Amino acid sequence: MRLSPAAEFAVRGVLVLAENYGNGPVTLDTICRARGLSKQYLVKLFAPLIRAKLITPIRGKKGGYLLARPPKDITVLEVIEAVEGPIVLNFCQDNPPQCDRTGCPMRDVWCDLQETIRRKLKSMTFASCISAQAKKKA
Amino acid sequence: MRLSPAAEFAVRGVLVLAENYGNGPVTLDTICRARGLSKQYLVKLFAPLIRAKLITPIRGKKGGYLLARPPKDITVLEVIEAVEGPIVLNFCQDNPPQCDRTGCPMRDVWCDLQETIRRKLKSMTFASCISAQAKKKA
Repeated sequence: MRLSPAAEFAVRGVLVLAENYGNGPVTLDTICRARGLSKQYLVKLFAPLIRAKLITPIRGKKGGYLLARPPKDITVLEVIEAVEGPIVLNFCQDNPPQCDRTGCPMRDVWCDLQETIRRKLKSMTFASCISAQAKKKA
Repeated sequence: MRLSPAAEFAVRGVLVLAENYGNGPVTLDTICRARGLSKQYLVKLFAPLIRAKLITPIRGKKGGYLLARPPKDITVLEVIEAVEGPIVLNFCQDNPPQCDRTGCPMRDVWCDLQETIRRKLKSMTFASCISAQAKKKA
């Protein structure tokens, strides 16, 4: 059970945009340097985030990327699901479910765990992550 | 973020043993029939569970598999980690951590989520899953 590398790196990239929110577009170079990512990889990672209207590409010499909404209005769940698709923990939560048994004692366990994961990731915005860390440093 | 099919099917197999606990060894045929798994696949799935001393193989004509401990003493986490290895949600929780930044605002998010997942799976034993389902049916 592991987050996909693409989702993890996308979150890292969005975090750089969130930290620079309000200061205009962040260039591809800045994001890549900040998180040690190659340009080619980052462009590929950001494509589904643009489609999901979470980030906006800005063209031109001073172009780059902007968050499409304030960091307090973008959740970690949104970024992960834009990249990975909806979080589906296991077969019995596929749509349609791939299950060989009705009334299985494990079904509630998996549903409950999936719901816990989604709820937790939905409760965390990029603003809340940044401010929690800032408080810790203070 | 998804449970590996091997871990999911191993949990299904152990569940059959838990439901038959106290009635002697459960044959490979019974488990395969109950959960629609091939014999070859189940033998492969059960190998790490035998090594982890969660189940015991019984040889002979009336042989099969037994839980090594009562269902109330085997957690869902133990079965998953016997198959998948320790749950590690992402790079920054690898050992050693693969991180490019100290004081990253995301680190606590991932640690917290991983701990929540492990705690939840550790709190669930096969006995508690079976009895929760039995109560629901009653």
